[in-house]
Amino acid sequence: MEATVAITKAETLKPKPDPETLQFGKTFTDHMFTMQYSSEKGWFYPEIKPYAPVEIDPAAMVFHYSQSVFEGLKAYKNEDGEVILFRPEENFKRLNRSNKRLSIPPVNEELALDYLRQLLELEKDWIPTAEGTSLYIRPFIIATEPSLQVAPAHRYQFFIIMSPVGSYYPEGIHPVSIMVEDHFTRAARGGTGTAKTGGNYSAGYNAQAKASQEGHAQVLWLDGVEKKYVEEVGSMNVFFKIDGEVVTPQLNDSILQGVTRKSVIELLEHWSVPVTERKITMQEIFDAHREGKLEEAFGSGTAAVISPIGELTWKGETMIVNGRETGDTTRDLYQTLTRIQTGKQDDPFNWVMKI
Amino acid sequence: MEATVAITKAETLKPKPDPETLQFGKTFTDHMFTMQYSSEKGWFYPEIKPYAPVEIDPAAMVFHYSQSVFEGLKAYKNEDGEVILFRPEENFKRLNRSNKRLSIPPVNEELALDYLRQLLELEKDWIPTAEGTSLYIRPFIIATEPSLQVAPAHRYQFFIIMSPVGSYYPEGIHPVSIMVEDHFTRAARGGTGTAKTGGNYSAGYNAQAKASQEGHAQVLWLDGVEKKYVEEVGSMNVFFKIDGEVVTPQLNDSILQGVTRKSVIELLEHWSVPVTERKITMQEIFDAHREGKLEEAFGSGTAAVISPIGELTWKGETMIVNGRETGDTTRDLYQTLTRIQTGKQDDPFNWVMKI
Ligand SMILES: Cc1ncc(COP(=O)(O)O)c(C=O)c1O
Ligand SMILES: Cc1ncc(COP(=O)(O)O)c(C=O)c1O
Repeated sequence: MEATVAITKAETLKPKPDPETLQFGKTFTDHMFTMQYSSEKGWFYPEIKPYAPVEIDPAAMVFHYSQSVFEGLKAYKNEDGEVILFRPEENFKRLNRSNKRLSIPPVNEELALDYLRQLLELEKDWIPTAEGTSLYIRPFIIATEPSLQVAPAHRYQFFIIMSPVGSYYPEGIHPVSIMVEDHFTRAARGGTGTAKTGGNYSAGYNAQAKASQEGHAQVLWLDGVEKKYVEEVGSMNVFFKIDGEVVTPQLNDSILQGVTRKSVIELLEHWSVPVTERKITMQEIFDAHREGKLEEAFGSGTAAVISPIGELTWKGETMIVNGRETGDTTRDLYQTLTRIQTGKQDDPFNWVMKI
Repeated sequence: MEATVAITKAETLKPKPDPETLQFGKTFTDHMFTMQYSSEKGWFYPEIKPYAPVEIDPAAMVFHYSQSVFEGLKAYKNEDGEVILFRPEENFKRLNRSNKRLSIPPVNEELALDYLRQLLELEKDWIPTAEGTSLYIRPFIIATEPSLQVAPAHRYQFFIIMSPVGSYYPEGIHPVSIMVEDHFTRAARGGTGTAKTGGNYSAGYNAQAKASQEGHAQVLWLDGVEKKYVEEVGSMNVFFKIDGEVVTPQLNDSILQGVTRKSVIELLEHWSVPVTERKITMQEIFDAHREGKLEEAFGSGTAAVISPIGELTWKGETMIVNGRETGDTTRDLYQTLTRIQTGKQDDPFNWVMKI
């Protein structure tokens, strides 16, 4: 399906940045996709046009009541120079799940993917090819209606913007230090944790600042109700290898359903490594560590793919995981996933989509 | 103190709307106040200029991670035509408390109040004077830095926009029907509930839609942890009169500290009506009702001032409060507060500020 899009090309193109010095999410490509929504017309006027500031009313509801959702995925070039995406249909499905939670009208997932395809077609020279680099894609929707009423908007704008990103691990994959957060809550039962909506992210800045001050890279979030169960790490899902078995918190209504998480579980099953989704208490991790059974720990997400955890600090005690070395399962997952994502390795699951 | 502000006046002024047909937060005055922030310069370039759309980068962090805070207060004209505000310093104090929770730099509260004063000076003809009408004032701050990093921004914009609003009770004050929400959570312990930040509001749309469908005006929010304790009603604080005593949920880190709530408590104390801030379970309200002791219930907030509750539905059971009539204490509070706010009555507390 080729969706109809009004295309206006930029008159001059920006210089492509040096992939060595790229910071995440600071440089944007020449063009962006946008589309409007009104209650009367539904989604309308899909267009690709030069990346530029947008004019928005100061009363736009997104500024006041944060009615917004977003997605994040990456495009790579394979060795034949073809543009490939990793499970993009999962991102558009999740976008619609987020929309539902935030009372935002759904988008047509196939059309949205075709809009992205057309944008990538135009911007393919922006996809960096150095090891670990990629083009980060950020679809998002904001409520644009000018109104201070605390109620869902009648007007929205959908955007896709893209940013070339450097390697997450310029010095090679290395385990990080994590602080378990006992006070602040990212998301609670009945809240918006399963949605990719802005409010979940700025709510975590205070905890992240506290962790950074104490020398940790990220926060481990416990459940918002009992502050007892492990939920996520920073903006990643989390896995532990305990006594030969990989465990990850089972999905509930405060954990984001990561595409990488799902892929990790499917890969482990494919490899016949035991993997279980269940409730996991922090105490259990602590006990496993004390008994010498906590073999590996890692986060999973689009940005880092797999991020090994070298130490975990909880209530003043620090657990060193696998002598602060990346464990074998963690490394296998990282290598296999990144090789599949970049088209360097067979893709037995049909995860990769060529554009 | 007269703060320095660059003022650009609108060339033509908009017609003032008919106060009879005004919808809340849909019409804005001729001018707005804005000010910028950067990490290097702090807050700079305060200006008053024509109300108009702003140019914002699509990567502005507010769109992605909802780093934003807001306030809401009202200006009235008294019988001498003077412009008056109700406890505005409380709003700017709360703005800074919200800023702290959202990792947004604080504003100078006295300067901010003076900026508002100057804006009101210019816009005073926009303050409607019919019974129950006012000029609603919306200060807010958004993160404008273009960056997809999940971290506090280095650039912000502060705005004050104003909207003439009609009477909340065009047909006179009347009790509404409330549904107790058992599933969705507005705010949980360790979350952002004490801050006026957008994410708390769009998170409640689903519950409000469910309540509306079932014929209720608003949602009563229970605590996010045990779903047992009463917290707020819609975007209002909540009070109950039980057996001659007025009770309201004690402040915690998920309840917004309403200026109206504080004033209600101070007024009741002044009147020697027993008033207590404490934890209140929904079960207790239910039991009090069954025993015939639930005499009155009402919400408090800037928009409605006081909103009597006529019935409460919880787990399929409906409690009728005071035969769906506005109770005496509720009515006294409404009348006294609105009369003080509009300068029609003595202000023994020094709440009203003349501009
Ligand atoms: C809160 C949160 N958890 C987990 C993830 C991981 O999801 P995915 O693997 O789809 O990137 C993300 C997004 O990256 C996230 O924002
Ligand atoms: C969630 C919430 N609770 C309570 C209130 C009442 O606060 P105030 O009396 O300051 O208007 C508000 C704001 O109006 C609010 O947004």
